[in-house]
Amino acid sequence: MNSLKTIEYLKDSYSKRICQLGKGKKSGKKIVGTFCIFVPDEIIFAAGADRVILCGGKNDTISIAEQYLPRNICPLVKSSFGSIVNDGCSGVKSCSHFDMVDLIVAENTCDSKKKMYELLDDYVPIHVIDLPQRPDSPAALNYFLDELDRFKSRMEQLTGNKVTDEQLKKEIKSSNEIRKLFHRLYELRKKDPSPINGTDVLKILQKQYFLSKDELKKSLNMLIDEVEEVDHRNEHMPRIMISGCPMSGGNTKVPEIVESRGGVIVAEESCTGTRSFWDPVDENKDPMLALAQRYIKIPCSCMSPNERRIDHILELAREFRVDGVVYYTLQFCHGYNIEKYKVQQALKDAGIPMLFIETDYSNSDVEQIGVRVDAFMEMIS
Amino acid sequence: MNSLKTIEYLKDSYSKRICQLGKGKKSGKKIVGTFCIFVPDEIIFAAGADRVILCGGKNDTISIAEQYLPRNICPLVKSSFGSIVNDGCSGVKSCSHFDMVDLIVAENTCDSKKKMYELLDDYVPIHVIDLPQRPDSPAALNYFLDELDRFKSRMEQLTGNKVTDEQLKKEIKSSNEIRKLFHRLYELRKKDPSPINGTDVLKILQKQYFLSKDELKKSLNMLIDEVEEVDHRNEHMPRIMISGCPMSGGNTKVPEIVESRGGVIVAEESCTGTRSFWDPVDENKDPMLALAQRYIKIPCSCMSPNERRIDHILELAREFRVDGVVYYTLQFCHGYNIEKYKVQQALKDAGIPMLFIETDYSNSDVEQIGVRVDAFMEMIS
Ligand code: SF4
Ligand code: SF4
Ligand code: SF4
Ligand code: SF4
Repeated sequence: MNSLKTIEYLKDSYSKRICQLGKGKKSGKKIVGTFCIFVPDEIIFAAGADRVILCGGKNDTISIAEQYLPRNICPLVKSSFGSIVNDGCSGVKSCSHFDMVDLIVAENTCDSKKKMYELLDDYVPIHVIDLPQRPDSPAALNYFLDELDRFKSRMEQLTGNKVTDEQLKKEIKSSNEIRKLFHRLYELRKKDPSPINGTDVLKILQKQYFLSKDELKKSLNMLIDEVEEVDHRNEHMPRIMISGCPMSGGNTKVPEIVESRGGVIVAEESCTGTRSFWDPVDENKDPMLALAQRYIKIPCSCMSPNERRIDHILELAREFRVDGVVYYTLQFCHGYNIEKYKVQQALKDAGIPMLFIETDYSNSDVEQIGVRVDAFMEMIS
Repeated sequence: MNSLKTIEYLKDSYSKRICQLGKGKKSGKKIVGTFCIFVPDEIIFAAGADRVILCGGKNDTISIAEQYLPRNICPLVKSSFGSIVNDGCSGVKSCSHFDMVDLIVAENTCDSKKKMYELLDDYVPIHVIDLPQRPDSPAALNYFLDELDRFKSRMEQLTGNKVTDEQLKKEIKSSNEIRKLFHRLYELRKKDPSPINGTDVLKILQKQYFLSKDELKKSLNMLIDEVEEVDHRNEHMPRIMISGCPMSGGNTKVPEIVESRGGVIVAEESCTGTRSFWDPVDENKDPMLALAQRYIKIPCSCMSPNERRIDHILELAREFRVDGVVYYTLQFCHGYNIEKYKVQQALKDAGIPMLFIETDYSNSDVEQIGVRVDAFMEMIS
């Protein structure tokens, strides 16, 4: 496959966006940082604030974090924390967007993030949304709705703007448009052979919570147009779905290994993947209720029971005609690591081969993973 | 110190209790298994059921659990799960009380337990109480109250008995009496030198959720009487508080090391310690509300913010005139391991030395921990 123009175009996007954020800030716009797709960004935008994601996908800030946090927690948490407390003194270049944030909006999801947020308090103002841990009860929904109302008030307080139902509906509509664009892109990947590499798709998935909505829409449209015109490849390559932990900006490790070893990734059951855009928000309901209902259903492993995730994995595997699933976890992520057992059982029952890869952000195991991927490819080819 | 008669007396308690449970079961009593002090046992008893704790403190069932669960999660979770799925075929003797349980009442607290419970579903009926992760908001209290009501209904369904306010009040009163007895026992440990070893106290703390209430009261009274008459020891020994993860039945590893190296443990800020009995339930309020208010305030690391825990540690350190704190965690327990940072800062500010011990249930690090404890003792003596 030739390199895609859209991916080329996106290479500048970081510095362009920083420039845009800087200008916004100068004219009084507030900037909110988030770590998780459970935080409804419709509420942030409806308050007239801007938003960037703070999840770290890079190895270099981890050693900074380890001065505060235990070593054996997931690299995503360490990398993110390290980026925020990094003052440049350890010789690691700090990313500008971490410094621009007026408020962090966090959520009680996994143990490590929940406790890490308490330490962030010393560096940036933080608002934590509590999340019920059950997705399916009326009482849980009520509690989540209460928490979203509290979040809305905090946003109003931060920006000085009232968050109206009208604004919320506008933002919901706009976010739904983006969700539709992602669905269109994924639809194209159902072709066999797939017209686009997963590594390329991941790059835009990673940017969805960093770019402005307009820029994201533009890039998605550009990419869809481009991919629609791609000549079919000749041979079938093993079609792989990645399922598991998020792959934050900077972390394309496993998809790269898989695609350099002859596979093609056709779907990501991930927060950098289907979990972020699959379900729309209902545009015909009270907007806050519609948001609560949509977001509480995100099938993250922090929810229990989480059968929806298993069902979704099986559905995706069928729809995208996958030959095998790479179950991908970050080391020490208890949620996704324990949930592996149920996913493995379900895939086994469905006759779909699975390869389990637990890793971190370092490069020390790239070769070893490669060897296991080779064996997996051979098995499913 | 001579060995205590009460501890001698308790040596038979396991088999006596099994016998009692067996008889109860034959006459139709339901037996509920729990894993955590967030589950109000007043509701279980008010429904006319009996209760045993299922937390594992032994190493021998861990290898059984590792056939299902990741290796790098906390030993408490693995040990407990292993005990439940153990069918004796792996050559590990199974404990009878695990087989007697009619219903497991679990709670969404830490990631590992939450996800482990989903797997238990295949072995024993399970009811999961969802826990808001904030201790201090009216909305969280409401949600917890809803969840306790749902739990109460499940107990009524299991036993066929109605849980009346009158029954609840009776059980609250009775549990408060036990809490008072523990306070009396702890009061005696404020003496310098302390008249009792922490390892001995721990043995009865571990049994508090296994024995019947009557037997527990009897043992506590016996122990208090005995300790009141203990002759003072001659020399001051370094007074240590253990703070951190629970030490479940079978696990006396760290207290034993500390006390064999010349220290005496005078308080446990732990779920096998103060967290289990410190706060009474208000006897003058609506009983369900009073339970919700009391239990939601347990300062476990799964709660955020958890400043109450820090305050409590400082308060205990003062009251029990501790010379040093052993911050004790189980390996891979993210909550308590991350919270260490804040505790360490607070103790430092208060001028109280702290030793951090992160360990598991094996004996491989006993010597190494001993050497570190020796150095700590020397420092604080
Ligand atoms: S994996 Fe869960 S906690 Fe992490 S970003 Fe996704 S939804 Fe949030
Ligand atoms: S990868 Fe797992 S442990 Fe890490 S932040 Fe996400 S849910 Fe938490
Ligand atoms: S440490 Fe927390 S989760 Fe564990 S038993 Fe205690 S209260 Fe429950
Ligand atoms: S010790 Fe920590 S990880 Fe283990 S069950 Fe308790 S809270 Fe969970």
